[in-house]
Amino acid sequence: MMKSESTAIDVPESGTVSKGKASLMAAPRDGKKGIAIFDFILRIGALVSALAAAATMGTSDETLTFFNQFFQFQASYDDIPTFQFFVIAMAMVAGYLVLSLPFSMVSIVRPHAAGPRSLLLIFDTVTLALNTSAAAAAADIVYLAHNGNATTNWFAICLQFGDFCRKVSGAVVASFASAVAFMLLVVMSGLALRRN
Amino acid sequence: MMKSESTAIDVPESGTVSKGKASLMAAPRDGKKGIAIFDFILRIGALVSALAAAATMGTSDETLTFFNQFFQFQASYDDIPTFQFFVIAMAMVAGYLVLSLPFSMVSIVRPHAAGPRSLLLIFDTVTLALNTSAAAAAADIVYLAHNGNATTNWFAICLQFGDFCRKVSGAVVASFASAVAFMLLVVMSGLALRRN
Repeated sequence: MMKSESTAIDVPESGTVSKGKASLMAAPRDGKKGIAIFDFILRIGALVSALAAAATMGTSDETLTFFNQFFQFQASYDDIPTFQFFVIAMAMVAGYLVLSLPFSMVSIVRPHAAGPRSLLLIFDTVTLALNTSAAAAAADIVYLAHNGNATTNWFAICLQFGDFCRKVSGAVVASFASAVAFMLLVVMSGLALRRN
Repeated sequence: MMKSESTAIDVPESGTVSKGKASLMAAPRDGKKGIAIFDFILRIGALVSALAAAATMGTSDETLTFFNQFFQFQASYDDIPTFQFFVIAMAMVAGYLVLSLPFSMVSIVRPHAAGPRSLLLIFDTVTLALNTSAAAAAADIVYLAHNGNATTNWFAICLQFGDFCRKVSGAVVASFASAVAFMLLVVMSGLALRRN
């Protein structure tokens, strides 16, 4: 693929019309390459966010000791199923991002190859949904933990477990950052496929 | 646009090379048109799901009367902020879908126009994220209402408010159906842009 393009540029314009067209098609290549490089950088940023979210949530627990060590109350992420789902989902997102890096590199080397980009578009869309649902569900529980709900008699637990709530809130913010990165990735992949 | 394509088919192949190319480009048009028609049908399906979700959640309330009418307990969607967000978000999704139908029709008439498709791709991605977050957050609260959580002393309310819980669960299922439709729409728009 690359070889035929480079020879098409060496051939003078007066060769055949179809070859002249091929070199014209290769002209806006820098834009595609730029998108591919930005895609790669964005993936690394999303990976860092997703790992930070999973790690922060996975290490969040707080033990309150009253009077002596026999009266303890403990809050940990694995007491709440939503937070367990969050850790698993964000770890899956991070794993997918690592696996997607080679395909993103192929897009940098061959900016006009539609195969890797289409594959990335499909899986990015699925991972966007996974990431968003984990982030939204965890944000919901964090809101409840901060504010409680009077109608259902669910009380705010952040008054007692302040450090736990702060860690969990940080993890949710990191996961929303990686969700925004995925939205950019999906739109960029779609627009880069546009004139291929 | 349409006019020039139809004349290009009438002109014999021996005309000019560029016109011959144009008619060749128009050859795989049926596949694109099929995708555009499926896109339109999927949008109508998603619209029905989103409206059903918003309406079901919006009309969900249950009043329990004990002894006489002076001892009442009421559960309604607007007691829980997440469900309020759900109604607003799903109404926005339905409104966006109505507005997107004309653009989808333009894609049916002109399957090779990249503009409407790119626009739909960008807004579909954003709406996918909105829809997924509303569905995930509401599903989270529905899970809590069904099961409660022992660590945080949040009790299950579905034992008392059974009808309320059933309506709310139905709304969440409908919103997940429209989220799946959006995932298909995004991937289809991206792949339809592929060789434009």
